[in-house]
Amino acid sequence: MKYVFVVALVGMALTSLWAQESVELRVDGDRLNRRLAELAQYGKNAQGGMDRFAFSEADLESRPYLRKAMEEAGLEVHSDEAGNMIGRRSGRNSDLAPILIGSHSDSVPDGGVFDGALGVLSAIECAQVLYENRVTTLHPIEVVIFTDEEGGLVGSKAMLGELSEEALREVSHSGKTISEGISFLGGNPGLLENVVRKEGDVAAFLEIHIEQGKILETEKVEIGVVEGIVGIKWWDVTIEGSANHAGTTPMNMRRDALLSAAHLVIAVNRVVTSMPGSQVGTVGEIRAEPGAPNVIPGRVEMSLELRDLSESKVADLFDLIASEAVAIEKKLGTKITFDRSDTSSTPALTDPRLREAIAKSAEKLGLSYKLMPSGAGHDAQAMAEIAPTGMIFIPSVDGISHSPKEYSSPGDIVNGANVLLHTILEIDRGL
Amino acid sequence: MKYVFVVALVGMALTSLWAQESVELRVDGDRLNRRLAELAQYGKNAQGGMDRFAFSEADLESRPYLRKAMEEAGLEVHSDEAGNMIGRRSGRNSDLAPILIGSHSDSVPDGGVFDGALGVLSAIECAQVLYENRVTTLHPIEVVIFTDEEGGLVGSKAMLGELSEEALREVSHSGKTISEGISFLGGNPGLLENVVRKEGDVAAFLEIHIEQGKILETEKVEIGVVEGIVGIKWWDVTIEGSANHAGTTPMNMRRDALLSAAHLVIAVNRVVTSMPGSQVGTVGEIRAEPGAPNVIPGRVEMSLELRDLSESKVADLFDLIASEAVAIEKKLGTKITFDRSDTSSTPALTDPRLREAIAKSAEKLGLSYKLMPSGAGHDAQAMAEIAPTGMIFIPSVDGISHSPKEYSSPGDIVNGANVLLHTILEIDRGL
Repeated sequence: MKYVFVVALVGMALTSLWAQESVELRVDGDRLNRRLAELAQYGKNAQGGMDRFAFSEADLESRPYLRKAMEEAGLEVHSDEAGNMIGRRSGRNSDLAPILIGSHSDSVPDGGVFDGALGVLSAIECAQVLYENRVTTLHPIEVVIFTDEEGGLVGSKAMLGELSEEALREVSHSGKTISEGISFLGGNPGLLENVVRKEGDVAAFLEIHIEQGKILETEKVEIGVVEGIVGIKWWDVTIEGSANHAGTTPMNMRRDALLSAAHLVIAVNRVVTSMPGSQVGTVGEIRAEPGAPNVIPGRVEMSLELRDLSESKVADLFDLIASEAVAIEKKLGTKITFDRSDTSSTPALTDPRLREAIAKSAEKLGLSYKLMPSGAGHDAQAMAEIAPTGMIFIPSVDGISHSPKEYSSPGDIVNGANVLLHTILEIDRGL
Repeated sequence: MKYVFVVALVGMALTSLWAQESVELRVDGDRLNRRLAELAQYGKNAQGGMDRFAFSEADLESRPYLRKAMEEAGLEVHSDEAGNMIGRRSGRNSDLAPILIGSHSDSVPDGGVFDGALGVLSAIECAQVLYENRVTTLHPIEVVIFTDEEGGLVGSKAMLGELSEEALREVSHSGKTISEGISFLGGNPGLLENVVRKEGDVAAFLEIHIEQGKILETEKVEIGVVEGIVGIKWWDVTIEGSANHAGTTPMNMRRDALLSAAHLVIAVNRVVTSMPGSQVGTVGEIRAEPGAPNVIPGRVEMSLELRDLSESKVADLFDLIASEAVAIEKKLGTKITFDRSDTSSTPALTDPRLREAIAKSAEKLGLSYKLMPSGAGHDAQAMAEIAPTGMIFIPSVDGISHSPKEYSSPGDIVNGANVLLHTILEIDRGL
């Protein structure tokens, strides 16, 4: 009886302490920035960039370091059959699904120090602060380091059960197939069904990432509350005219495929910028045939890419571009065809409750924030298929990413990790 | 005395006969078209096109055939040190410089049957008609088959003394250098000074050629009276922007080099078509870097070519294009630079007296004609530097040239050769 009373008293005291501490809790910024520098030693190249691409020696060699950091954070660590490294800490309510936090530790070849690593080490830091402050969440917490994000969300797609046989056969930058790479990391590509999680298996997924653009920097905003990861549609565009001698063909007898292509490039820009919103449209690739200074181009092939959070807006934009193409065809006597590419992806929206939790945490910490889309792909986009997902951006200097020049300031990193920490606590109570 | 009188009488009779016959004289169209088909056997390829490129076995093997045709035309044949084959017939006045007529017998790889060959065989046909009809011109007549026109006017430039050591070292389609090729044809690249002709050494040069465009065909005109061969200016254009992630860079933060290039391509077209005249402007080559569908192009390289009979018009056009480029730079935050290429050529005008003689001959023959520029280069462009030059065009079906599909009708060929014949007679009297 006495014992029960004492336990209850201690429990009340702890709850009150927890409620108070959760406001005051802060990540250890020095430790987080030190770990970012330490992890950057694995795969560092002569340009100061990262060659820790998936399934490389550097990828493998960095794992004991990451395991140790997870263990220091009080997490119980295991690697799953997809090579995802997962560190878990139980919650107070064992009936609840875990809150997952994390990102990826692989880089693109000659990439930067922060892309992925920030999300991994911030998640570990948050777990460690909770552990050191003896704050036990209601939900179990799992820190996830996803396998080979840069090669196509390999680890997170495996968690959805969407890693196809074809994808497993693809050759990665390491020279290994994805399948060989997963085995190399200690996984088992034959038992991927073991890693699959279904709707309800994950209470929420949270990822912090560098912006990889310069919206936050330009607008001097400290935190980006990601509305979602944009859908991407690609088209191969072909413009057919008549190849002809540039000297003997008068201007009024030409069917110049490149002149038509030029009108189309401008039309893409005009259509995409004609509506409010954050949609983007890009022609990144162009080739004129036969491709000699003294021959009028008879054929042009170019790419067209449209991205937005709304699939119907992308469809509307494309329809407008296609109408402009018809007008160009008529005016210049050329033929324009659009072939949809299979590599397109659909938009992945974040959960409004998680957006709100991130915004509330930023406010509590006195940080400015704004709602914005993610123009690039992330593991969060896969996780959004099975769980309420939230994503936090911090500023990238000059918007540079996938480059040794990628940089985010220690102050911005600490701000972001603190927002992650308080968002975890917020949703732990709120969900 | 009696003898002199008889000679005078015969002379008067002949002169009158000549004057009358010159109106009635016609080429043997069947023979000309047959010879075109016969010459086309040398270097004919599986596509029905010509691989009689300069210094090939086919080029060498066709020469005895051409020599025989020249001899049948009553010409005294020799090959000069540049490999040019020349057939000469004396005139009545040995003090006069010769009238040169001819073209080239080489083709581009996979070229057509008519480009060059028409000019060579029509010139031989004209000589043969004069010979068979016992018409002796005042001026000597020389039929010239120039060496390697397609490789850069090699034979005609040698005749100007303008074939540089550097040009001699260039490797031709045959795999031989120009120098080796000249030796292969029996020439002597060490004695090219022997072939040089100066102003006054040639009374006139006449060339008949297929149009290689479709102005005559479209306008249903039978004969083109060439005003001159256009000058060509080339520029390498570089447009610099910022390469950036196509997903994370908002439309208003882009410096898209390809968008600027598109505006410039359209500006070139607008400027060139803004003035009356036959000037042309072409962007035939374009390359965007890094050249991926998901990266905003940071750099574009493209070609710019302008052609006209007037150098000052080309200069004016370029100035207008350069001003438009400055406006594009300002509007889109990109940098545009133009580098002039050395391969540019200056315009070569034909002689007004020869133009008139061609027009008068066409009229006499009841053929429609029009003044027009030659957008392509020809041996006539070299010869214009040392002699009054005239050039006759006949229609090219669909304007196709440098292709197995190159075609001109037998009727148009005969019309052209008859115009050449009467122009020779016209200028023989008139110059």
